[in-house]
Amino acid sequence: MKGKDESQHVDVKLQVRYAETDQMGHAYYANYLVWFEVGRAAYCRARGLTYSKLEEDDNIFLPVVHAGCRYMRPLRYDEEFIVRTRVGELRSRVLTFCYEIMSVDEGTSYAEGETTHVFTDDQVRPRRLPQAYRELLDG
Amino acid sequence: MKGKDESQHVDVKLQVRYAETDQMGHAYYANYLVWFEVGRAAYCRARGLTYSKLEEDDNIFLPVVHAGCRYMRPLRYDEEFIVRTRVGELRSRVLTFCYEIMSVDEGTSYAEGETTHVFTDDQVRPRRLPQAYRELLDG
Amino acid sequence: MKGKDESQHVDVKLQVRYAETDQMGHAYYANYLVWFEVGRAAYCRARGLTYSKLEEDDNIFLPVVHAGCRYMRPLRYDEEFIVRTRVGELRSRVLTFCYEIMSVDEGTSYAEGETTHVFTDDQVRPRRLPQAYRELLDG
Amino acid sequence: MKGKDESQHVDVKLQVRYAETDQMGHAYYANYLVWFEVGRAAYCRARGLTYSKLEEDDNIFLPVVHAGCRYMRPLRYDEEFIVRTRVGELRSRVLTFCYEIMSVDEGTSYAEGETTHVFTDDQVRPRRLPQAYRELLDG
Repeated sequence: MKGKDESQHVDVKLQVRYAETDQMGHAYYANYLVWFEVGRAAYCRARGLTYSKLEEDDNIFLPVVHAGCRYMRPLRYDEEFIVRTRVGELRSRVLTFCYEIMSVDEGTSYAEGETTHVFTDDQVRPRRLPQAYRELLDG
Repeated sequence: MKGKDESQHVDVKLQVRYAETDQMGHAYYANYLVWFEVGRAAYCRARGLTYSKLEEDDNIFLPVVHAGCRYMRPLRYDEEFIVRTRVGELRSRVLTFCYEIMSVDEGTSYAEGETTHVFTDDQVRPRRLPQAYRELLDG
Repeated sequence: MKGKDESQHVDVKLQVRYAETDQMGHAYYANYLVWFEVGRAAYCRARGLTYSKLEEDDNIFLPVVHAGCRYMRPLRYDEEFIVRTRVGELRSRVLTFCYEIMSVDEGTSYAEGETTHVFTDDQVRPRRLPQAYRELLDG
Repeated sequence: MKGKDESQHVDVKLQVRYAETDQMGHAYYANYLVWFEVGRAAYCRARGLTYSKLEEDDNIFLPVVHAGCRYMRPLRYDEEFIVRTRVGELRSRVLTFCYEIMSVDEGTSYAEGETTHVFTDDQVRPRRLPQAYRELLDG
């Protein structure tokens, strides 16, 4: 039986696109937030939830209220990497995801960060996340 | 009195962002299409139309059906440039914009391109552009 | 033995990112050029070439001189799709890639396009592609 | 005579591009980091420094080691806004910029954030910022 720490994260493998490099030869820093988003979408999907379904069927949106990233080592064009995503905190109105960007062999950590989201409807009014979804996300 | 050719274009001045560079040290090629869009939004605005108004008030969308760009000389970080936009063709169902990316002194041409749009509603069903808007766009 | 038509293309599977959507709810049109680039990088890699190696080891760059895309049907968030890339034309100084963006079951075509590249050094001076690489690319 | 607080920031006016929206109809969250970069480039330029000069002439790079953003209110397509940038902390090896994204009339604050940079050469080895530049940046 897996412990909670092992079972909670979801990994997705990506590769640095040419479009994501900058003239320093590194992946441009804003792209890490795009990768975080790919990570949390993968996390939700692995838990049986998709943003599309949340938005269209349930009128639940997850706007970001805070994002942070620490950049440890640069990533270069064509490098493969893993986005490891887990839920940091899940309350009725607030959800925090934590991310680690690491090498495919998991030996090198390139960056880590977190995003905090609130639950709203499409008019950006606060909502509570239905209990069924809380259980799914809490994985 | 200005002739038709002179009066028809709208210029907008932009500057290459670091995010838009790639590891070759040039502005990445997909960004030219973003700049074209900034150019045609400026064109529409100068004619008294905004995408927001078209989309929200009139349920008119302008999805792109074709885009093309010829790249003559690379643009580098921090360089200022002009996006010159004019309407190439305007019919009841189809609209073509033409663009030129040039230096601020207009002496150097970096790229030129065109985008073709159809008029649809938000369900991507074809629509005709109202005559009042045709006259505005035709500048 | 596979015929030339079957063997020549390389497929890569992608998924529309939230960052790639626009307020129309579709994948924004400039992103197709980013996906084309992912496609041609995959094509080159499958032939034993990488941009990194070309740029760093051989001082060969492939700036784009023309790009075009026809958009047939919109792609939406989270949709998976295939970028199918093949070489359209390969001469000593010019290389054209052709792309098709299609559904994973290959039943729907979303877009098709092409990019034309020249071979240069890092000072954007024209170069010829070494014969060994021509044979690799010609697949 | 202006006090230090008033004189220290540099404002740049931008407008939300269609490319920067997402299907929620808001500016996508990673773009704020792009705007921060536009803000700090404007800040440096106003102080007589450009990234291009730093990188090419002095072999000084400013990779980001941390970025954070708090999102207070969504920005929508076509909205104009100000990126207000100031130096938060400037030491021999570390530089922090602070940003505020606000409405053109300065009445609404959309977001605020900060980025922390170290000084390196093009091999990502730590460097000290020359004293002359420190004085320029400290505005």
